[in-house]
Amino acid sequence: MEYTLTELANRCGGLLRGNGDTLIRSVATIQHAGPGAITFLSNNRYRRYLAETRAAAVILTPADADICPVPALVSDNPYLLYARVATLLTAALAPQKGVDAGAKIHPDARVSAEAWIAPGVVLEKGVVIARGACIGPNCVIQAGASVGEDSRLVANVTLCHDVRVGKRALIHPGAVLGADGFGIARDGDTWVKVPQLGSVVIGDDVEIGANTTIDRGALEDTVIDNGVKLDNQIQVGHNAHIGEHTAIAGCVGISGSAHIGRRCMIGGGAGVAGHIEICDDVTITAMTIVSHSIHEPGVYSGSLPMDTGAQWRKNSARFRQLDEFVRRLITIEKKLKD
Amino acid sequence: MEYTLTELANRCGGLLRGNGDTLIRSVATIQHAGPGAITFLSNNRYRRYLAETRAAAVILTPADADICPVPALVSDNPYLLYARVATLLTAALAPQKGVDAGAKIHPDARVSAEAWIAPGVVLEKGVVIARGACIGPNCVIQAGASVGEDSRLVANVTLCHDVRVGKRALIHPGAVLGADGFGIARDGDTWVKVPQLGSVVIGDDVEIGANTTIDRGALEDTVIDNGVKLDNQIQVGHNAHIGEHTAIAGCVGISGSAHIGRRCMIGGGAGVAGHIEICDDVTITAMTIVSHSIHEPGVYSGSLPMDTGAQWRKNSARFRQLDEFVRRLITIEKKLKD
Amino acid sequence: MEYTLTELANRCGGLLRGNGDTLIRSVATIQHAGPGAITFLSNNRYRRYLAETRAAAVILTPADADICPVPALVSDNPYLLYARVATLLTAALAPQKGVDAGAKIHPDARVSAEAWIAPGVVLEKGVVIARGACIGPNCVIQAGASVGEDSRLVANVTLCHDVRVGKRALIHPGAVLGADGFGIARDGDTWVKVPQLGSVVIGDDVEIGANTTIDRGALEDTVIDNGVKLDNQIQVGHNAHIGEHTAIAGCVGISGSAHIGRRCMIGGGAGVAGHIEICDDVTITAMTIVSHSIHEPGVYSGSLPMDTGAQWRKNSARFRQLDEFVRRLITIEKKLKD
Repeated sequence: MEYTLTELANRCGGLLRGNGDTLIRSVATIQHAGPGAITFLSNNRYRRYLAETRAAAVILTPADADICPVPALVSDNPYLLYARVATLLTAALAPQKGVDAGAKIHPDARVSAEAWIAPGVVLEKGVVIARGACIGPNCVIQAGASVGEDSRLVANVTLCHDVRVGKRALIHPGAVLGADGFGIARDGDTWVKVPQLGSVVIGDDVEIGANTTIDRGALEDTVIDNGVKLDNQIQVGHNAHIGEHTAIAGCVGISGSAHIGRRCMIGGGAGVAGHIEICDDVTITAMTIVSHSIHEPGVYSGSLPMDTGAQWRKNSARFRQLDEFVRRLITIEKKLKD
Repeated sequence: MEYTLTELANRCGGLLRGNGDTLIRSVATIQHAGPGAITFLSNNRYRRYLAETRAAAVILTPADADICPVPALVSDNPYLLYARVATLLTAALAPQKGVDAGAKIHPDARVSAEAWIAPGVVLEKGVVIARGACIGPNCVIQAGASVGEDSRLVANVTLCHDVRVGKRALIHPGAVLGADGFGIARDGDTWVKVPQLGSVVIGDDVEIGANTTIDRGALEDTVIDNGVKLDNQIQVGHNAHIGEHTAIAGCVGISGSAHIGRRCMIGGGAGVAGHIEICDDVTITAMTIVSHSIHEPGVYSGSLPMDTGAQWRKNSARFRQLDEFVRRLITIEKKLKD
Repeated sequence: MEYTLTELANRCGGLLRGNGDTLIRSVATIQHAGPGAITFLSNNRYRRYLAETRAAAVILTPADADICPVPALVSDNPYLLYARVATLLTAALAPQKGVDAGAKIHPDARVSAEAWIAPGVVLEKGVVIARGACIGPNCVIQAGASVGEDSRLVANVTLCHDVRVGKRALIHPGAVLGADGFGIARDGDTWVKVPQLGSVVIGDDVEIGANTTIDRGALEDTVIDNGVKLDNQIQVGHNAHIGEHTAIAGCVGISGSAHIGRRCMIGGGAGVAGHIEICDDVTITAMTIVSHSIHEPGVYSGSLPMDTGAQWRKNSARFRQLDEFVRRLITIEKKLKD
């Protein structure tokens, strides 16, 4: 694909600055862009490369536009404009259609003629695959599960029985949706399994990262709402609910029955306790433990910054006696009062 | 399946209260149960729904029985009784038997005629599958590995060579048992691989969550004892030993040669250091780092509760100088003594 | 295989002590070794077993050699010498060659006649498999990806399109290389996907653990340099760079665009923030959060040691007011100065 800068501005937005006839064929980083490539500047760390860039054009903010040596598309949200331009320039070919001879389709599965089923895929009884869906190699979709229009399971994805995936989902390799929740009841010294009878329901426009796991509900469903974006290796426990347009970074663990609001952002490695509620528009920083409900939008944190090993050892040893030190402080305060 | 409340009491336990002829066909939550459904009450958060429940019957404690508006099964451990009732009511059909034409079975593998091998399964040389076992779609079982009676590998599970799984195991999708332990020896600037010659031995009645990984031992075996329950995305290092009926929540990491006792409970995201020992009946709270051996049963913790970002920044900045503050405190104490 | 102790010393190194004609057929732990087995002693925890060992020979340090009751190979790095001896004694048979009838190979894939493609493997268009490579059961290699000489993908590994794996790689089951990086741009209340146009490049002699995920770059490649060793369930974000011979333990999360130097060691469960730099020869202890760049080699820490639940609750409650306590300390200091 090839567009003039004027065409890109018309289709994707942004204010043109400089020669609108500049031809754009590709995207690249600001450091390494060459002729025909457009780049973007949205992180201050990279501004030092602007003066020397060999890009054909740059997407940037009004503030940076004045010092841009080449034509530009100007926007208050250059990263978003870049996303649109890159999507346009790298538009994929129409996906394949049909069922590969190496797939195993149960006779009672219903597959749209407009879907693609790759080699090695197993579709069990009652599975429904909508038109435009693409089920990549070696995916397993168990009895009664369904995949909505234009959704893509890249490869080696497992949907357990009765899981429902909405439209335009993108599910990366190794993801497992609908494994049993971790429900066990103590019986003296041993454990008795609690049947996990709910399912998993995924809304529209959801992205699910590689090796992420989302457990089925115990009695009702685990729910991932429209527009949720999940990174890799996230664990979502049974009956959790994740609200619309919430984005969660890699390695986060969400315990059972946690209820997370809309438009939240959760940093990598964080943990959310079970049966708690997080309201809309909450940001959790990386590796924080959300141990209780949050009722006010805002930023919440809980992880200590690293230090040199020697300094850390001193401070953490003191931490082990923190309560005692505070008591001694209070004793001094009393003494001084007298 | 359909039972009277009296039949459920006879088969599963619990003291009948109210009309024993009440017919029960399903299980449901206390909020959403309707006619024919039994529910349970074991968590105080849900007691407020009891008065209004439309369930046909409720499983609950003696203390809650008096305020129950419908027939009840009374037990000191309602969650356990519910587990039994739900298991009875939702009993699965007898599993399939036979070998799907789309499975690839090495001629030297031995598969019971009473087992089920799904499409896409690969069984290598010397594999043994016992009767009642169910090997789900696209599982890979490598040379010499074995699966005991009535065990189920749901889908996309990998057993590496010579891994042994006991009876009645339930292994969820994406689990990997028997990958090489992380054994490397430093050789100047580079690393030399240490052969991983042990295996993994899984006892009876073990459940293993989705995408959990259990490495093979370096020289001897990694051992998961009878009745152990592992949630999703747990990592178990080589030569670890997990004692009977220990339950471990999601995202826990257990380092090599750690020895964990019986009936322990480990919360989500916790980490256990290598070569340490945890005695029986220890509870570790979520995201705690078990950095040294534990010789006394009890509860152990190590994670800080989250705070607002602003408050957290202040406190964590002080933490970086905690040792200095304590020294200053001691100086004051000395001064006041003089 | 069977060797005399003299032959082992000649081939693997180490100073012979005692009878060089001692025959060695196997390796074992110091506690459980029997006739014909060689063992090693490199961890002080196990020295107490030395006097009673029934091993045919022991690999150990000069300091331990004097108290060794059996023949020995003496080395300053007994674990490394053991790794070499064990590799020699347990040398695998020559791997299989050819393409199993149950693999699905795109006609435009190029597979060396000296490679092995197991049942259930899917190779898409343009894939290149070099000689000596071994692609285990049910692996998926997507369009344009390549695997170098003598590399082994054990089973159920996914390489997404255009990923390049070097020579002698060992990739364990469930690993996913080249899934899309987590790139999303905010658009009001929703998110727009940013195309992930780079790839993943893996050097030579790299080991990648089970269920580890390495995302493809956004514009340029995610790079894992020669000799890097990654344990299980590690997450590597887009455009990260891991330098030569760095070793990373299980469950570590590395955010996008992090640049990690050579010969680093990162402990289990640690997290590395995005866009930061870690210089060569840095050691990060387990479960530390690397929140900012590190420019000096050395050891860095950031995790608190566990305590009993009761003691922990007291200390962590005080932590929530740490800033206030320090202010009160400063107030006292001022008062005493006056």
